[in-house]
Amino acid sequence: MTEYTAPLRDIRFALNDVLDFGYHYATIPGGEDATPEVVDAILEEFGKLCENTLVPLYRSGDEEECQWQDGEVTTPKGFKAAYQQYAQGGWPSLSSDIDYSGQGLPSSLSHITGELAASANMGFALYTGGQSGAIETLAAFGSPEQRDLYERKLIEGEWNATMCLTEPHCGTDLGLLRTKAEPQTDGSYAITGTKIFITGGEHDLTDNIVHIVLARLPDAPQGTKGISLFIVPKVMSDAEGNLGERNSVYCGSIEHKMGIKASATCVMNFDGATGYLLGDVNRGLMAMFTFMNASRIATATQGVAHAELGFQKSLAYARERLQMRAPNGPQNPQGPADPIIVHPDVRRMLLTQKAFAEGNRMLVYFLSKQLDLSERGQNKETRQQAKNLLDLMTPIGKAFASETGFESANLGLQCFGGHGYIREWGMEQNVRDARISMLYEGTTGVQALDLLGRKVLGSGGVMLKTFTDQIQFFCQNESSNETIKPYINKLNQLIEEWHRLTKTIGDKALTDANEIGAASVSYLMFSGYICLAYFWTQAAAAASRKLDEGSEDKDFYQSKLTTAQFYFDHVLPRTRTCVETINAGAESLMALDAQHFQF
Amino acid sequence: MTEYTAPLRDIRFALNDVLDFGYHYATIPGGEDATPEVVDAILEEFGKLCENTLVPLYRSGDEEECQWQDGEVTTPKGFKAAYQQYAQGGWPSLSSDIDYSGQGLPSSLSHITGELAASANMGFALYTGGQSGAIETLAAFGSPEQRDLYERKLIEGEWNATMCLTEPHCGTDLGLLRTKAEPQTDGSYAITGTKIFITGGEHDLTDNIVHIVLARLPDAPQGTKGISLFIVPKVMSDAEGNLGERNSVYCGSIEHKMGIKASATCVMNFDGATGYLLGDVNRGLMAMFTFMNASRIATATQGVAHAELGFQKSLAYARERLQMRAPNGPQNPQGPADPIIVHPDVRRMLLTQKAFAEGNRMLVYFLSKQLDLSERGQNKETRQQAKNLLDLMTPIGKAFASETGFESANLGLQCFGGHGYIREWGMEQNVRDARISMLYEGTTGVQALDLLGRKVLGSGGVMLKTFTDQIQFFCQNESSNETIKPYINKLNQLIEEWHRLTKTIGDKALTDANEIGAASVSYLMFSGYICLAYFWTQAAAAASRKLDEGSEDKDFYQSKLTTAQFYFDHVLPRTRTCVETINAGAESLMALDAQHFQF
Repeated sequence: MTEYTAPLRDIRFALNDVLDFGYHYATIPGGEDATPEVVDAILEEFGKLCENTLVPLYRSGDEEECQWQDGEVTTPKGFKAAYQQYAQGGWPSLSSDIDYSGQGLPSSLSHITGELAASANMGFALYTGGQSGAIETLAAFGSPEQRDLYERKLIEGEWNATMCLTEPHCGTDLGLLRTKAEPQTDGSYAITGTKIFITGGEHDLTDNIVHIVLARLPDAPQGTKGISLFIVPKVMSDAEGNLGERNSVYCGSIEHKMGIKASATCVMNFDGATGYLLGDVNRGLMAMFTFMNASRIATATQGVAHAELGFQKSLAYARERLQMRAPNGPQNPQGPADPIIVHPDVRRMLLTQKAFAEGNRMLVYFLSKQLDLSERGQNKETRQQAKNLLDLMTPIGKAFASETGFESANLGLQCFGGHGYIREWGMEQNVRDARISMLYEGTTGVQALDLLGRKVLGSGGVMLKTFTDQIQFFCQNESSNETIKPYINKLNQLIEEWHRLTKTIGDKALTDANEIGAASVSYLMFSGYICLAYFWTQAAAAASRKLDEGSEDKDFYQSKLTTAQFYFDHVLPRTRTCVETINAGAESLMALDAQHFQF
Repeated sequence: MTEYTAPLRDIRFALNDVLDFGYHYATIPGGEDATPEVVDAILEEFGKLCENTLVPLYRSGDEEECQWQDGEVTTPKGFKAAYQQYAQGGWPSLSSDIDYSGQGLPSSLSHITGELAASANMGFALYTGGQSGAIETLAAFGSPEQRDLYERKLIEGEWNATMCLTEPHCGTDLGLLRTKAEPQTDGSYAITGTKIFITGGEHDLTDNIVHIVLARLPDAPQGTKGISLFIVPKVMSDAEGNLGERNSVYCGSIEHKMGIKASATCVMNFDGATGYLLGDVNRGLMAMFTFMNASRIATATQGVAHAELGFQKSLAYARERLQMRAPNGPQNPQGPADPIIVHPDVRRMLLTQKAFAEGNRMLVYFLSKQLDLSERGQNKETRQQAKNLLDLMTPIGKAFASETGFESANLGLQCFGGHGYIREWGMEQNVRDARISMLYEGTTGVQALDLLGRKVLGSGGVMLKTFTDQIQFFCQNESSNETIKPYINKLNQLIEEWHRLTKTIGDKALTDANEIGAASVSYLMFSGYICLAYFWTQAAAAASRKLDEGSEDKDFYQSKLTTAQFYFDHVLPRTRTCVETINAGAESLMALDAQHFQF
């Protein structure tokens, strides 16, 4: 059975040939040392950890699941050792603050390695993912003392962390949250309430877990403007991190889920637990926004991971499985049948996975680059521009990459026929694991409203235009490249259509706000298909340059041209359906009374 | 938590108002007694069995799974009692031959009840499904003695049965099968070989299991023309069915699967087991074709079942879950938030499920009607016409209903947000259970090749034209109905496009056979969307007539009109993408060398 191999060749292509990370890193603080060679070495090292340590725990982690007993959670066999290896390798510190034991490398590097971990073992990767969110939040809002204790311990990998947002009655609608924080005489707060869906809320990987918790002060305004952030450690400690008494926060149970079974998804009960205010009072939700882009990019990255994993495994199977003959006559006449990769429809399924894995990889790297620039850009203008682009494109990346990642995982399974349904091949686990990415960190519907309502229409179209100007600038620059001319023409048409559709929806929304929600998901997917067309055109441009230069990697670059052509031929036509459903509007969606859906 | 309720109101609409089963049953032998009132009573009774007996075992069956030990398989708690209740209720005999303990009702009735069982408990339903396939095969090819023993025991529900086709190295490509049958001096055969993916190959529901096995005689020609059919009982018996010695066929293991975990999927080892020839030597695969349409319709029915189950549960959730406010202002001002059904995108997901569940239900009933007519039509011409229509449309029904059933199950899950990923709601089980239907009984790719290659192009377009003539005849008849005029116009356009595309593909295929496989899945889905448009137009026509007649069921019929409009606005536009991808052809699918998909 083929296992996962870190796709380093394709990663190098996206980083170096398409997105010029060499230049990017050379021009941002902390990136100077991240030359292409260093990045290569880092990824190769991390790839080994994934292939040798995480992949072997992929299926066993799913089969064993986490076990809960009396408030304690045991992770599957091997997870603790793997976590220690991960921590000792210094991986939690990769892009963290150098003043708190970090290596100070750009944030984007964590997203690049994140894909490999999520492909190798999604259940495991979630323990390390929660950590980054907490580190970033502490970095942005922690006092020097808080950072010196909690952030340092996290960066050193000694402790683990969670983000505690969701409650039983509120997921998307955090304004409804009820967990309360009562001020104590010593300046701390007593935190009381129930949080659900807490990834890694309890486990045996580390001695301590730092919970970042959203709660309300007694006198806080209602809704989203009355939410504050608190640090609630599982075990109390002194300022050096020497552990003391157990805090009164306990894991009430863990969820039994469709997938990511090796990841403990916890119900956390805070029973007057000691907490410390993080950042300003009543600014908790605002604080969440700062790291929300990063968590959404991380989720987009998972979409890449699931597509890549499904692609690798189904490709290997399609090359080996002998069944039927090729339409144009035997290709393997000595054998009893041909390998199924000779069939056009099997190729369609493989190429779709490939186009999404490699296409969304470029999209995610583009986003990560903007994340770097928004944090470390040389001047305010650069940072703000990057921030705007990030705000616009993160919901696209999150929803589009997770939707197409799930589709790809399913296509990978489908290539196996009935065998794909059997657990031992791992294809169905990939489908189950992939399914969560369309739900958490804001469902596809939530991303779509954020994109169309808040970002595109909310900015009066300005944010969108900034991005399409960039595409058009690229198109003009490449106008003499004959290889990609048809793609350039197509892109220019689509951009025009994008603006036209946006205007139509905006006009309709003036008289009926439902028009935004009615169009939103189709609009997001439409935008996603155009973004990928843009990146595949860039890939084709880069590949054609390499071929013109006489590169020795001829087959590799030629495969990029072929995949780009496949994308334009067989995937991009999905925009046609998006356009029609967007234009269909809200009427038939809203006509039925809620009581009359079923009789 | 809302459980499943048999959708009797909608079933009555499809049967009576749209497809006029009253007339249909009145005109076929065995159908005379099946008046609408009798059918109603049967379905109500079966619905109760499903709701009261099968639904309570839905989740426990999935959690407990089947257990294998030393060749014996234990089904989940409660399954044996439920099976006995099912058998004692006479349900296996519903549409079986009256001369062998059957009730002789039309085959279609079994497909109608089949949907309810598959919604209520897919794992359970598979034990009873395998039975029907064996009963039909015995009925068609068994000697009077074979029928009197095996078929009767199956119809009486005392024994259970399997169909043993697949082997480890051959699923789609049955020509490769190796299981051998050696003639014995007593006229029986010694069967030796390994079969996999055998549904209900071993279990504790009945005292005996009858295996219908594909195997090769020693002197049989290679490939598909050397396959014969055998009856291999688990336990030997005398002619009255009194059990004797154990036959040497054993269950080597059961598969651990993504879903349908309550259904035992067995590896069966035949070790010189005693078998009896069924039908003619070397005609086994031909024999399989006779019941293949029926099993594909049964799989299409599962697609309806999964869409219906997802729809019912997500609708109930969407009406109850309070989160955020409606775009046009609060709809539930007294509550902390509005029910999520106020949101256009949630409605899109609900209506898509509804349109597929109810639309595919009409499609499946239409197919079942043709099945009845192909079996019991009054003259040869009627039977042949029905058979042709069935041959054309069964692959569409199988693949389209299972693909959109899976999509619907996923949309149902999506409506729950993160909660949908948690096992207790049952939404993720529905997704896992639904996933198999796109794989077994021929994958979507196999159905698509059958449709486009064998049926449409293989008949020189004649089979397709017969069906589109029928649609056009309907369109002409309804041309004065103003309510459905836009749908009629759209249908006429699509039929023209259907023929045009068919011709284009056929022309291209003359020079490159890969063009068929390249277009096939898009072509099948395109065909499916048109079929559903046809049925939704019929539904709208029927509903508008009822409204014109002043029916008291105004809200019900109005909801049909609204759903038809939704289908044309928000689902049918998917044909636009199909057309573009079909026209894109095989070139970019075939360009990449198998070695160059990955580097």
